[in-house]
Amino acid sequence: MIKGDDYKQRIAKLKPNVHMGGKKIDRFDSRLIGGMNVLAASYDLAFDPEFEGVGVATSHLTGEKINRFTNIHRSVEDLLNKQKMTRLYCQEVGGCILRCTAADLTNGLSIVTSEADAKYGTNYYERFNNFLRKVQQEDLSIAAAQTDVKGERTLRPAQQKDPDLYLRVVEKKADGIVVNGAKAHNTASVHSDEIMVIPTRNMMADERDWAVAFSLPSDWEGVKLINVAFHPPQRRVLKAPYTQYGMVHTITVFDHVFVPWERVFLCGETELAGKLALLFALFHRHSYTGCKAAFSEVLTGATALAAECNGIDKASHVRHKLAEMMQIIDLIYASGIAAAMNANKYPCGTYAPDTNYCNAGRMLAGEHIYGEYQALAAIAGGLAATLPGEDEFLSEETGPYLQKYLMRNPKIPAETQYRAFRLFQDMMASAYGGHKLIDALHGGGSPVIERVAIYRDYNIEHSKNIARKLAGIPFEGTTKKIDRLSNAVL
Amino acid sequence: MIKGDDYKQRIAKLKPNVHMGGKKIDRFDSRLIGGMNVLAASYDLAFDPEFEGVGVATSHLTGEKINRFTNIHRSVEDLLNKQKMTRLYCQEVGGCILRCTAADLTNGLSIVTSEADAKYGTNYYERFNNFLRKVQQEDLSIAAAQTDVKGERTLRPAQQKDPDLYLRVVEKKADGIVVNGAKAHNTASVHSDEIMVIPTRNMMADERDWAVAFSLPSDWEGVKLINVAFHPPQRRVLKAPYTQYGMVHTITVFDHVFVPWERVFLCGETELAGKLALLFALFHRHSYTGCKAAFSEVLTGATALAAECNGIDKASHVRHKLAEMMQIIDLIYASGIAAAMNANKYPCGTYAPDTNYCNAGRMLAGEHIYGEYQALAAIAGGLAATLPGEDEFLSEETGPYLQKYLMRNPKIPAETQYRAFRLFQDMMASAYGGHKLIDALHGGGSPVIERVAIYRDYNIEHSKNIARKLAGIPFEGTTKKIDRLSNAVL
Amino acid sequence: MIKGDDYKQRIAKLKPNVHMGGKKIDRFDSRLIGGMNVLAASYDLAFDPEFEGVGVATSHLTGEKINRFTNIHRSVEDLLNKQKMTRLYCQEVGGCILRCTAADLTNGLSIVTSEADAKYGTNYYERFNNFLRKVQQEDLSIAAAQTDVKGERTLRPAQQKDPDLYLRVVEKKADGIVVNGAKAHNTASVHSDEIMVIPTRNMMADERDWAVAFSLPSDWEGVKLINVAFHPPQRRVLKAPYTQYGMVHTITVFDHVFVPWERVFLCGETELAGKLALLFALFHRHSYTGCKAAFSEVLTGATALAAECNGIDKASHVRHKLAEMMQIIDLIYASGIAAAMNANKYPCGTYAPDTNYCNAGRMLAGEHIYGEYQALAAIAGGLAATLPGEDEFLSEETGPYLQKYLMRNPKIPAETQYRAFRLFQDMMASAYGGHKLIDALHGGGSPVIERVAIYRDYNIEHSKNIARKLAGIPFEGTTKKIDRLSNAVL
Amino acid sequence: MIKGDDYKQRIAKLKPNVHMGGKKIDRFDSRLIGGMNVLAASYDLAFDPEFEGVGVATSHLTGEKINRFTNIHRSVEDLLNKQKMTRLYCQEVGGCILRCTAADLTNGLSIVTSEADAKYGTNYYERFNNFLRKVQQEDLSIAAAQTDVKGERTLRPAQQKDPDLYLRVVEKKADGIVVNGAKAHNTASVHSDEIMVIPTRNMMADERDWAVAFSLPSDWEGVKLINVAFHPPQRRVLKAPYTQYGMVHTITVFDHVFVPWERVFLCGETELAGKLALLFALFHRHSYTGCKAAFSEVLTGATALAAECNGIDKASHVRHKLAEMMQIIDLIYASGIAAAMNANKYPCGTYAPDTNYCNAGRMLAGEHIYGEYQALAAIAGGLAATLPGEDEFLSEETGPYLQKYLMRNPKIPAETQYRAFRLFQDMMASAYGGHKLIDALHGGGSPVIERVAIYRDYNIEHSKNIARKLAGIPFEGTTKKIDRLSNAVL
Repeated sequence: MIKGDDYKQRIAKLKPNVHMGGKKIDRFDSRLIGGMNVLAASYDLAFDPEFEGVGVATSHLTGEKINRFTNIHRSVEDLLNKQKMTRLYCQEVGGCILRCTAADLTNGLSIVTSEADAKYGTNYYERFNNFLRKVQQEDLSIAAAQTDVKGERTLRPAQQKDPDLYLRVVEKKADGIVVNGAKAHNTASVHSDEIMVIPTRNMMADERDWAVAFSLPSDWEGVKLINVAFHPPQRRVLKAPYTQYGMVHTITVFDHVFVPWERVFLCGETELAGKLALLFALFHRHSYTGCKAAFSEVLTGATALAAECNGIDKASHVRHKLAEMMQIIDLIYASGIAAAMNANKYPCGTYAPDTNYCNAGRMLAGEHIYGEYQALAAIAGGLAATLPGEDEFLSEETGPYLQKYLMRNPKIPAETQYRAFRLFQDMMASAYGGHKLIDALHGGGSPVIERVAIYRDYNIEHSKNIARKLAGIPFEGTTKKIDRLSNAVL
Repeated sequence: MIKGDDYKQRIAKLKPNVHMGGKKIDRFDSRLIGGMNVLAASYDLAFDPEFEGVGVATSHLTGEKINRFTNIHRSVEDLLNKQKMTRLYCQEVGGCILRCTAADLTNGLSIVTSEADAKYGTNYYERFNNFLRKVQQEDLSIAAAQTDVKGERTLRPAQQKDPDLYLRVVEKKADGIVVNGAKAHNTASVHSDEIMVIPTRNMMADERDWAVAFSLPSDWEGVKLINVAFHPPQRRVLKAPYTQYGMVHTITVFDHVFVPWERVFLCGETELAGKLALLFALFHRHSYTGCKAAFSEVLTGATALAAECNGIDKASHVRHKLAEMMQIIDLIYASGIAAAMNANKYPCGTYAPDTNYCNAGRMLAGEHIYGEYQALAAIAGGLAATLPGEDEFLSEETGPYLQKYLMRNPKIPAETQYRAFRLFQDMMASAYGGHKLIDALHGGGSPVIERVAIYRDYNIEHSKNIARKLAGIPFEGTTKKIDRLSNAVL
Repeated sequence: MIKGDDYKQRIAKLKPNVHMGGKKIDRFDSRLIGGMNVLAASYDLAFDPEFEGVGVATSHLTGEKINRFTNIHRSVEDLLNKQKMTRLYCQEVGGCILRCTAADLTNGLSIVTSEADAKYGTNYYERFNNFLRKVQQEDLSIAAAQTDVKGERTLRPAQQKDPDLYLRVVEKKADGIVVNGAKAHNTASVHSDEIMVIPTRNMMADERDWAVAFSLPSDWEGVKLINVAFHPPQRRVLKAPYTQYGMVHTITVFDHVFVPWERVFLCGETELAGKLALLFALFHRHSYTGCKAAFSEVLTGATALAAECNGIDKASHVRHKLAEMMQIIDLIYASGIAAAMNANKYPCGTYAPDTNYCNAGRMLAGEHIYGEYQALAAIAGGLAATLPGEDEFLSEETGPYLQKYLMRNPKIPAETQYRAFRLFQDMMASAYGGHKLIDALHGGGSPVIERVAIYRDYNIEHSKNIARKLAGIPFEGTTKKIDRLSNAVL
Repeated sequence: MIKGDDYKQRIAKLKPNVHMGGKKIDRFDSRLIGGMNVLAASYDLAFDPEFEGVGVATSHLTGEKINRFTNIHRSVEDLLNKQKMTRLYCQEVGGCILRCTAADLTNGLSIVTSEADAKYGTNYYERFNNFLRKVQQEDLSIAAAQTDVKGERTLRPAQQKDPDLYLRVVEKKADGIVVNGAKAHNTASVHSDEIMVIPTRNMMADERDWAVAFSLPSDWEGVKLINVAFHPPQRRVLKAPYTQYGMVHTITVFDHVFVPWERVFLCGETELAGKLALLFALFHRHSYTGCKAAFSEVLTGATALAAECNGIDKASHVRHKLAEMMQIIDLIYASGIAAAMNANKYPCGTYAPDTNYCNAGRMLAGEHIYGEYQALAAIAGGLAATLPGEDEFLSEETGPYLQKYLMRNPKIPAETQYRAFRLFQDMMASAYGGHKLIDALHGGGSPVIERVAIYRDYNIEHSKNIARKLAGIPFEGTTKKIDRLSNAVL
């Protein structure tokens, strides 16, 4: 386990391959620093005594203390603690903690590599465990590069005019493979030690070249990070934690990149490509039941603070709206608890949460986020948009006017009220805030995808049998046994 | 533990005090039999080997096997099993199992009676345990009589012109008390062995007469059950389980009724009246996370069956709608799991589920039920309303026309399709079905009540502190500790 | 123009062909009388001086005063008046006025028959006008028989195994045609003078036999009305207008029925079949902007009455809910006004309302009706379900208890409160009420159908051009002209 | 009537009083130019032959052609044309046209000044008409300064500790009055010729000082514009109309400002203060039925364009979502048509739209805007957030990668797809886009305000009477007459 400063020093050594504003920029460029601060927090918070028992786990490989983001879940309790850690940390940084992908990817790989070995006699699992040992010992951060750019949506990978529209193996060598393609929507890739590539979907028998998974240092030869950056507007004087953090995303180009075999974890096993894609999504959606609960809690707290500033915190329509937000927080978090309680234990010993509960919670989170912003905007009022900048609040000429005319709740100092509305404006009427809405809708899988998954995974015949039985229509099987109601592992 | 037939024989011995259609009617009147069949099922299902480990518990008083509806929850597992039993049984009868009140009332009383003793030196807890021992040994059913008729809603009990508008003690005697008043919306009171009365709300210091709890046999002297009954339309030929069940409700009048001391469990301890009211609501809402999940599952199964009959089960808008219904089921059930996992253990040893998770789930269930009916109606189509009766389907003159013209999915026999749409019509276009919507909205507490409770019980200052911290506004306390995220009892 | 009693006497002369309960029943059977009372009202209200200028129109054929239900719309004002009449009459009977189909069908036929003549040299329009003259002079009611039973939904009429699953011409004779098939969901057919058959959908070139429209007296040889009836529970003592009305629906079987040529209005002109289907739907949905507004007004009034009885009419959440209901009423009605203001005048002189505005309003109405019932149930509370029957309220033994314990708002007499809650129970917890929900969802076209129609009829390229222009993307055409914004006919 | 360039030259002559970034800035500062471009468009579009008959009106004072934004509505057709113009112009600039306040304020004043004269013998109406003549002849733009900063929300103006928290008259002189205070959320004040002040709410008899209305040139002595500016990110190469426009808002401070009597239109007539506030809101909400329909059309067009780029425009869930957006457009616009059709003609000859229809439409618009953004984000996908900047698209090193990997629909050139997603990012993930959401929620009155207004203005007793009549409960009055159903002025 290392600290945030150690992490930053390591990142400082990476070779420049981040493209932005038409040039290669330094990883410590001011536009990128917000994301790096978040990742640094993921290291420091593990040492915080207030989070004891949450942020630190014990490696099943070495028995040593490790940052929980590098842990393989070996029990229901591990899953519950990962969810809890994710929520608590996200509340600290006011948004995404950026590092859950490390755990979500490695847990998925632990299952799929061991299954590949069992099925095909490969030795992926040992190779993966060697890699994982290094991740745990060096406390590495890992960015996910899953979503292919996908070209024409109605065509499969092998049908695209340009075969690179899904990342693929273009050459196999004695010491490794050469891949070509690009992955989109890669969050925090510029601040991460490693970038891990996995398939975006299931693959057919003739799509072996596209069934590939591997991990590379983020500054590896041929890897190009074409970046876009978001962060709240910076402040000159009235500084606040919220504005220290940010998010960046890349289209990550792999231009004929060589990957040594010891970093390859799937290569041509088409039957397992889709499984790996789904398992990462599953672990990631379980993480979302933590982070989205936190994000909703931040919005709820902000909305309550707005009500207090406006002196309307006793109005019944305000309390009703806040109660709805609290309900959403609890339902999202509850779905993650239920998913953990109904976890499946795989032969390799890894615990994976229940799929439907994860999807139900993630779908709820995705569909409600616009409504939560609407609640904050509704209760904060127009000032969240029309608040003048801090220069106006601080200038000799206009400052006294704003001190006088921004006063609402007489129990709260003017500067506190100004700081509160500045937070609301930053959260909503900034590029960062606007982009967060889209991120919160799509990140980890859009609601429409969860909807499809929920239908697919539900035992609809069982439900129909219940109706058939009540209607006096013959049916096969029993209506009485239902999985996913109890916790087999309690 | 007894069987359904034993239960019915016991009910047959009750003295007639059920008023309906302008007269006293027999408890085996055809209008009432549906509810009795449900309660009988609650006895029989406990013996069903498919429900092993679910329906039977071990008494903490006697160590004997008891029907779980009479059990005091002594662990998280007890709470999870109660929730599970409730869901599974409700799926069998296609609606409310009618008996959860027995467990919900007694669990609430176990806490409040022991607290009263600790606080006031009373001996309610022993008295209650004696009563409970009898309930467990004789396997008694208990109907809840909580909701007072309440008169003018804006006035408190002591302020009403007519003091009886909240049930109250009108006389204290050496051997017991005399009560007067009425309780509304009492479900299944006519089929239950006992009727248990508890306060409907908190009481002020000057409202001692209204702070009263007791239990009486349902045919006790002076108890009058003014009844309304609902059941699906009965069938002559095409019989089905759904139509065997029903629900009845009474306004239960207590006309100067004497209650012996050994049946009195609260009498004047105003500070505990509200607590008992809330605890019953809490246990009951936790039960709802089971029964409402079941009710939604019945609706989902019916909707899927309708889609199959109509041959539209592959249409994407149909699958999306079904996925939404499945999501609701899982979120409701998940909230009950999370509530159990965050249970509080009281000094007497009783485990009570977390309040907010219960309220979040119950509120979701209440607010979505109309939408679920809408989904069934939308996918079933107009025939759910316009289906002719079974006489038309079976008659020589019109039967052949209906056999010909009701055919939709050619893979499903005409009679099966008829039976399916008959179920849909019974579920929606019947007095029973219409009343179920209202019942599912209000039973166990209306969404507006849960909304108020969620706001009241949430730690809103903690949420605000998270926002304050991010905004750079001073605050007191920590943002880092949050209860209700982990399971202290795992 | 005739009065309700004249109408009833005419109906009394119809030959018995209504099948219910396994036998042929009289049209004055108590189960059917509710619907007949509604139709009678459609005659009487036209004579009511309070509705002057609304219910009476002037025939463009004869210049005589006619009941507006038999009028062809010759101006925007006609459309506005028809909408207004529909709303006002529906408010009087507390639901569907049952007779709008007469106007909606004949207006559609006026356009299609004249277009057929122009295109094919037929003489349908004259034939239709002769029929219409009779309808106007004799003041006939006409039930619509549009929806075919449709068999397997994914197959077209000509592809069904059983060709009769869409009603079709099986023989052409010198003096007429012979048709076979059945139409479903035919409302008020048993009380109507005429039953008019039109196609349910567009027809392909090889589906000539299914492209047929005609009208027949409702007791015509070979027409069989297989009936289902709904009405509120009848009262013994506490009578009320609401319970006098009802609705019945038939599957109408045409078993090799002969139709004389003078009653045939389309026969084989496949290109016009879909147009007729859509035009009837269009006029009917415009009528819905009147009747659904009325139905929502009834629900809003009932909800406000419930709030008053419960003494919560000043609570802000109650007023917010009522405001939402009022908003829906106004939006539905506004869409009908806008549709009239953007009417198209056809060459024959008939005015048809704008399609998209009608669909927008009808879709809104359909999707919100469950929410309106939910609002009524939420504000009325559980008593809407659990209210005992009038026998209990009136009996000597239980009446005094109910008089005492049902008292809520002390300013309102007990009987008034009882009557109010009886209305709520009848509206929601009765077979009639439950069936009304389904009827209000699907009648005149389900929301999903309007959704499809809205997309189909919208000029999406124009919308995209607006976006393209703003994005600096080349496009063809102008962004500046938009139809349907102004009233060309003002 | 003047052109946009003439307008800009006039604005260039204004004295500097715009405060931003801690200093006084020029009105042609690049951060402000977007808003000025919009206002210039409001002048130029009136000369566009494609908008003939829409943008130009005839002055009832002079008979001359005037820009419709300076017109007093003298007929239903005027109201319909104003609504139409607003929609068409807003579609051209992709957002608010910024100038409707001119018409909305002057129409309100025409009514209130004439009523004041009738009631108090003042001569405001003549004074107002003199002012209006100048506005029409010089084609002036007028910004609204209505919303007071309001201090403690639960206190009335006269109760605030600081009496300036509502703008007020502090001195009356022979030649005019002196006012002190500030108005918040003043849009486009920095680009407007005039700033017009009206009350924000009703006033009590003891609040004469706060019942004041007047208009001043926007650079008048003592007027300070404390500004915040929003505009889409500017482009270096791939320029687009959308990015030329913007919005700015000020807190407008009136520091002991002198207003000559000829510019004072209300001063102490407390009974008319609330009426003026409501009338402006009314006309403004009617304008919103035009502009919000346009804004929704822009979002709908963008969403359809996104679907086309992504190749999913035939997916049924995409079409359903687009149909919902189309429905909202039509319902909003329909409510404005209905409001115009039910206009009230005031004694002075001004036509005001119906209140409830306006509120119903505005409330719908306000409550749905977040959902429309969500639809665009859902269908555009994550790329709307993660799209790299134009520098990356155009650079030699990364451009070819983006040209290759951003390709989706192979029928659409890469640059077009890039431009489309750039529009989506600018609309959503920019400070401008985020602020537009808040603006669209609150501008013209928040939904919660319309909700209150709808309830207040509805004839709820009439609705209750309908329910009472159906229930057999006595009532006073008739159920048969309903205003607002017909168009008295057709």
